[in-house]
Amino acid sequence: MTSRLDQATIDLLGVLAYGELTAFERLATDARLAPTISDKHALASMAAAEFGHYQRLYDHLRSESVDPEEAMRPFVEPLDAFHDSTPPNDWLESLIKAYLGDGLAADFYREVATFVQDPVTRGLVLEVLADTGQASFAVATVTAAIAADPALAGRLALWGRRLVGEALIQAQRVAVERDALTELLVGGSLDLAGIGRLLTRLTDNHTARMQALGLQA
Amino acid sequence: MTSRLDQATIDLLGVLAYGELTAFERLATDARLAPTISDKHALASMAAAEFGHYQRLYDHLRSESVDPEEAMRPFVEPLDAFHDSTPPNDWLESLIKAYLGDGLAADFYREVATFVQDPVTRGLVLEVLADTGQASFAVATVTAAIAADPALAGRLALWGRRLVGEALIQAQRVAVERDALTELLVGGSLDLAGIGRLLTRLTDNHTARMQALGLQA
Repeated sequence: MTSRLDQATIDLLGVLAYGELTAFERLATDARLAPTISDKHALASMAAAEFGHYQRLYDHLRSESVDPEEAMRPFVEPLDAFHDSTPPNDWLESLIKAYLGDGLAADFYREVATFVQDPVTRGLVLEVLADTGQASFAVATVTAAIAADPALAGRLALWGRRLVGEALIQAQRVAVERDALTELLVGGSLDLAGIGRLLTRLTDNHTARMQALGLQA
Repeated sequence: MTSRLDQATIDLLGVLAYGELTAFERLATDARLAPTISDKHALASMAAAEFGHYQRLYDHLRSESVDPEEAMRPFVEPLDAFHDSTPPNDWLESLIKAYLGDGLAADFYREVATFVQDPVTRGLVLEVLADTGQASFAVATVTAAIAADPALAGRLALWGRRLVGEALIQAQRVAVERDALTELLVGGSLDLAGIGRLLTRLTDNHTARMQALGLQA
């Protein structure tokens, strides 16, 4: 198939789509850890929202004559590796993973989206990155748990730092292997100083999310 | 809250809703066993369809002034016990469980639905029991796998029989504990001979599904 989309844009849609598909799978799996029906309902609703995003990206790829599976394939290994290396041990770790992971991914893709040439694709990317409701629910639940048992904060802060570390390892791997995607970012007028500022923005946002949870970044 | 729905109807909606929610969870979890992206896509799509059904039942309960969590609560233990006692060991077992489980549940609820007084509820029950696409996908995948490796048929047939056995154990438990639901079925003009015919219909349909998979019931 030939598509009017360039390889970098296809890569971006592919990694986003597989990211949403795995987020769906893991959130739905983690719903089993939920202590109450109402918590299970909340997590399952988030998972279903991620699937809705996945479906839109999938349909968009097809409508642009791109085989969605081909587009996702290069990102199966790094994304599976990320999830396999970070299985939540309990309900709170699962919520924190959903909140921090979604937040970091959204920040990153939002930055990349500004370099996407095709306006329809850019609009779709920004749209599927909108919050699926994790944020307020995760923050409320985690802060309440820490208030009830302050000793939790240490373990959960370590968990948050570990998640970012594992995410960076896999992101670096993608950057090395997917030239087009990396060039979209770097070639999109981002020089070394620009990349430095990008990393600072991402780190600042991550720190803000950790603080919202009541955790030290 | 007081609702115009009677307890038996609330029970039916509750067990259906929690059934869909756990089906969603388990299917999405099993999507991790899928050997290809395309299989994963298929299973995740079915899971998302189950969630859509769950959402409709949940919304219907709320619109009828019933707390959905209260309605689901009595069925958490038996349904969780069913799933905990039947974790699929591989992708094929997971597909068979989805297909047989969904089929048996649909047959049963379809029978019960005829006794539901409220027409809106009856319509909704029949609608959410419609096939979510498992059937043809599961049949095609399982029969292809057995054609490629006929030795599989024995193990998978045992698996199918075990699923029904475990389902019956939990159904019996629900029948004993939920008088209203049982009376809906029995009181709905079903005498002993009628129950015998009901069980025969359910068993016949199950046998037909096993045969469609190429398995001995």
